[in-house]
Amino acid sequence: MFSAAPWLTAIDLIGTFVFAVSGATLGVRRQLDLFGVLVLSVAAATAGGIIRDVMIGAVPPASLVNWEYLAVATLAGVVTFAFAEIVERVEHPVRLFDAAGLGLFAVAGTAKALDFGLAAPSAVLLGTLSGIGGGIVRDIMVAQVPTVLRSELYASAAIVGGICVTVAVWLQLPRGPAMVVGAVLCFVLRFMAIRYRWGLPVARARADGSDD
Amino acid sequence: MFSAAPWLTAIDLIGTFVFAVSGATLGVRRQLDLFGVLVLSVAAATAGGIIRDVMIGAVPPASLVNWEYLAVATLAGVVTFAFAEIVERVEHPVRLFDAAGLGLFAVAGTAKALDFGLAAPSAVLLGTLSGIGGGIVRDIMVAQVPTVLRSELYASAAIVGGICVTVAVWLQLPRGPAMVVGAVLCFVLRFMAIRYRWGLPVARARADGSDD
Amino acid sequence: MFSAAPWLTAIDLIGTFVFAVSGATLGVRRQLDLFGVLVLSVAAATAGGIIRDVMIGAVPPASLVNWEYLAVATLAGVVTFAFAEIVERVEHPVRLFDAAGLGLFAVAGTAKALDFGLAAPSAVLLGTLSGIGGGIVRDIMVAQVPTVLRSELYASAAIVGGICVTVAVWLQLPRGPAMVVGAVLCFVLRFMAIRYRWGLPVARARADGSDD
Repeated sequence: MFSAAPWLTAIDLIGTFVFAVSGATLGVRRQLDLFGVLVLSVAAATAGGIIRDVMIGAVPPASLVNWEYLAVATLAGVVTFAFAEIVERVEHPVRLFDAAGLGLFAVAGTAKALDFGLAAPSAVLLGTLSGIGGGIVRDIMVAQVPTVLRSELYASAAIVGGICVTVAVWLQLPRGPAMVVGAVLCFVLRFMAIRYRWGLPVARARADGSDD
Repeated sequence: MFSAAPWLTAIDLIGTFVFAVSGATLGVRRQLDLFGVLVLSVAAATAGGIIRDVMIGAVPPASLVNWEYLAVATLAGVVTFAFAEIVERVEHPVRLFDAAGLGLFAVAGTAKALDFGLAAPSAVLLGTLSGIGGGIVRDIMVAQVPTVLRSELYASAAIVGGICVTVAVWLQLPRGPAMVVGAVLCFVLRFMAIRYRWGLPVARARADGSDD
Repeated sequence: MFSAAPWLTAIDLIGTFVFAVSGATLGVRRQLDLFGVLVLSVAAATAGGIIRDVMIGAVPPASLVNWEYLAVATLAGVVTFAFAEIVERVEHPVRLFDAAGLGLFAVAGTAKALDFGLAAPSAVLLGTLSGIGGGIVRDIMVAQVPTVLRSELYASAAIVGGICVTVAVWLQLPRGPAMVVGAVLCFVLRFMAIRYRWGLPVARARADGSDD
């Protein structure tokens, strides 16, 4: 059914699920109805993979051709909608599921780009882009500044995950475990940044609200 | 001039026109000047088709290669700008023209995807995406939450239109009338949802304005 | 290293630099930290070229495959962040660097599209789209209405730059100087529009804040 390696597909589907939960949770918070919540789940879950596939010329994108992606995203949306009160009890649920999706898509994107013959740095970049793409589309759709701009160690954590996969492939280590390690590393970095509010300095400039 | 079937082209150009009117009307409401109104017309009118064409690998997209699309979108923008006061008298003009564009692009996108050999479910999905794409880009460009998230029966209406075309092709019925029926069905569903405020329940959750 | 003509590459990299500065400056104004500023630099600098490359089927996009683009964008972001107080003294810094990037990407996009065999009007359109793409993505990411909608002579200035290149190629004049002239012409038009607040009339309509 899938041409890609089973590890890649498994990680891709888990990433789809957690990003869909992040989208659905944001939709519930914004008081969208069930339809809106499902659209936001699907958008958050598929945007990263679609961006990746369009960029490497793997069209039509996997999430349009294989029904599994859409089914998983819809299921995640419905479950989140039904159990919204429980999901809410998790602290920072949007950010947590987003961090998991970030790691999973970053390693899956990097691996797929390597499969398509891209050089190591380009593969890491593409992995990063497919990791951050879902969250960007999700946040822009509810008219808020994307997490990738507001948060420390976001794109950077994705880069670390992608490098992990690239190095493993270069050392001819087994790819599956390397993808799991890379995704976990990225997630832990993001989680620590959220938990301990790791931050960087902000440049001094007129903050008068005008942009020109 | 066009490689696609004449029905497809006709429906595509009418969809371009009505989406352009929806973009121009929104631009006039937001007090943009003529340039801004035209940019918003063209964006609303071409985004859905561009997304569809990029996803099925039909690059460069039809709306860049054939001047008709741009001409129709620009014309619609200029006419809407000139007769803004009349268009305003129509109730809910943005939503009405948006609903017409949604139906037309959903069936045109589904038909083109079937032409490119996609399986039925993928074709319906791609049709839906090309139907909702123009409205999403239009709304995001004026920094408002897209209609597809705020409204009941939006993506669902597009799915119904796409299924209509897919079933007709499967039953080997003539495609042209099936596209018209699908587009009308989608429009009527959306119109009824707007008219009677059909809505779905909203999940119970803390609505404290924070997203994390 | 690059398959494209050296002039095209040079103009592309300078455009990347100035658009990155426009993104970084906006990031500093919005009080983003260093990571956020860099993401906004890279987004503003690469989005136009990525849109262009995806549309003509030149995937993976040049800015993912060649490390120079990312290096230039990152460098521009770091420099802008470090010298934010100096950049601030320039009047209208975001708009000025944005105008330079607009002209450079409009001519580079048009030239690359001609190289890929597109007809003259399509090439100008694609050039315009790759010129305005970076600014649109940059502005949408900080949830503000893109400059292309708020400003006079924005898309129009890009069109003029693109026409300049197309005419030169048609007359078989040397392409390099034509690209410089086109980029300068576009920049000057935009600069004059900013400087003298050239504007167009706004349509009369209910401005009651509702969009439907």
